[in-house]
Amino acid sequence: MVLTPLILDLIGVFFFAVSGSLLAARRGFDIVGSLLLGSLTGLGGGVLRDLILGVTPNAFAHPVYFLPPLLAVIAVYLFAPSVDSYKGTLLVFDAGGLALFCIVGTLKALDLGMPPVAAILLGMTTALGGGLMRDVVANQVPTLFDPKDIYAIPALLGAGLTALFWQLGFVNGWFQLGVATVVFTLRVLAMRFSWHVPKAVGPWHGNWAPRL
Amino acid sequence: MVLTPLILDLIGVFFFAVSGSLLAARRGFDIVGSLLLGSLTGLGGGVLRDLILGVTPNAFAHPVYFLPPLLAVIAVYLFAPSVDSYKGTLLVFDAGGLALFCIVGTLKALDLGMPPVAAILLGMTTALGGGLMRDVVANQVPTLFDPKDIYAIPALLGAGLTALFWQLGFVNGWFQLGVATVVFTLRVLAMRFSWHVPKAVGPWHGNWAPRL
Amino acid sequence: MVLTPLILDLIGVFFFAVSGSLLAARRGFDIVGSLLLGSLTGLGGGVLRDLILGVTPNAFAHPVYFLPPLLAVIAVYLFAPSVDSYKGTLLVFDAGGLALFCIVGTLKALDLGMPPVAAILLGMTTALGGGLMRDVVANQVPTLFDPKDIYAIPALLGAGLTALFWQLGFVNGWFQLGVATVVFTLRVLAMRFSWHVPKAVGPWHGNWAPRL
Repeated sequence: MVLTPLILDLIGVFFFAVSGSLLAARRGFDIVGSLLLGSLTGLGGGVLRDLILGVTPNAFAHPVYFLPPLLAVIAVYLFAPSVDSYKGTLLVFDAGGLALFCIVGTLKALDLGMPPVAAILLGMTTALGGGLMRDVVANQVPTLFDPKDIYAIPALLGAGLTALFWQLGFVNGWFQLGVATVVFTLRVLAMRFSWHVPKAVGPWHGNWAPRL
Repeated sequence: MVLTPLILDLIGVFFFAVSGSLLAARRGFDIVGSLLLGSLTGLGGGVLRDLILGVTPNAFAHPVYFLPPLLAVIAVYLFAPSVDSYKGTLLVFDAGGLALFCIVGTLKALDLGMPPVAAILLGMTTALGGGLMRDVVANQVPTLFDPKDIYAIPALLGAGLTALFWQLGFVNGWFQLGVATVVFTLRVLAMRFSWHVPKAVGPWHGNWAPRL
Repeated sequence: MVLTPLILDLIGVFFFAVSGSLLAARRGFDIVGSLLLGSLTGLGGGVLRDLILGVTPNAFAHPVYFLPPLLAVIAVYLFAPSVDSYKGTLLVFDAGGLALFCIVGTLKALDLGMPPVAAILLGMTTALGGGLMRDVVANQVPTLFDPKDIYAIPALLGAGLTALFWQLGFVNGWFQLGVATVVFTLRVLAMRFSWHVPKAVGPWHGNWAPRL
């Protein structure tokens, strides 16, 4: 199989769309709501990136992008895990989308002539945007902000490695698959072992127990 | 009265703006909050559509678009229903905006040269965007996702009919009014008789009672 | 010090970013979440304005815009107030951002050739957008809609004065500082003395006690 950017992008859309459709299931939404939340999750980050880049968003220029969300709806309808274990499944698919989108988003920005730092920021936007919209629309505190593990740091690593090796002229499909594996593994291990970073306020400030 | 696209669009803005101002009233916001939430609801979907199309959003290119939200604020201030029956009123006005925007949004995309499938998606974006923003900003689960009836399907029908008849060269003001009536009626009947579609997970998956 | 638009803009970003990082702290987010919420708050309004204007958003064209959010994260980590008094600090910094952004946003729109009314609307979008995104993402009813005081009116005043004096050819750094001081003072006094405007429904409509 040739790992073209389009195929990697569509797989990323599918992963995020599954996470959206699973959340839709958990909230008791119907199959249309599942398609809408899956589409928003899978396509939202890329649409935001393309708007910032000033190009027609992929999802509207190439409606094939709505195929992965459709497949995700069917997959969740047929093969959903039990309600007790849905969250782990959701987060693993979310991690898959994160791993692919931080690369795809950075590459698209570089290909369109953005400087490396801006391309990294756009890769982050692509990777974090869809999941953020999913959680905001479903009215919950975004997974992105869960302080129990790390989420944005693996995406930053993936975007940074992509920009670095792109400048060295060393980016192909297999390279992308390798970086995606690193990002995915880091994110999953962080969840498994609760790797985390310090809180937003220094520990000498007294009790800042979270208010949720 | 000549039913120009501009007039239908402004009426759609007014309908959605009333829904936003009614929700503002329910949340105890003041008249400025009513204007802001009404404007976001009435103009948000069109702004998003225009950003995707790469044109200056109507609301900023032609500030006359802020007139319907202003009228909506005054109408809600003077003639609000009782707090017990506000929700039905809100949903009927929301249905009116939905019915007009799925047509207006699809037509604008077609006029700017988008292919029919993309135009339908943009019509949906226009119709669903404002109400989604209204509910997200007011911190509640979007009406769009309420599984007790159907919301996106009437909009899809309206956008699809518009794209079909546009290709046949058969779209004028009266045609638009006819399609809008069909969409509005379908949405209102769906609310009245709780027409709905299956849940996001198949019934053999055990208890997926919604967590709200 | 020369008060260039860039410097005033960056100071506005810093003020809003501090408000975002303080809210992140209150929600128990970590330092990465603090950076993300601070960046969204500080940069979101300007990105939205630039997308509407059809230009590459500042934050991505000039990554120096991510420096103020970084400084805000450090400042909040080191010098956060006590958890009991964080909200006043948050709102004062938010008022500082509001005061600068309503001017900077209006001027940018005018410089790009938008007519005065559209420029005022874009100044409002810049001033209100970041704080709205902050509150939506952190899953709370936006400060903007708090009916206990006024928020959008000072921003409208600042945007209006800027557009008026720009047409008279009388806008420089010191003028901007003067208008910002007026806007900031009005907002802070409104908080202090609970200046407010009427509710969204007239008082003769019976009990519309807010449902939050």
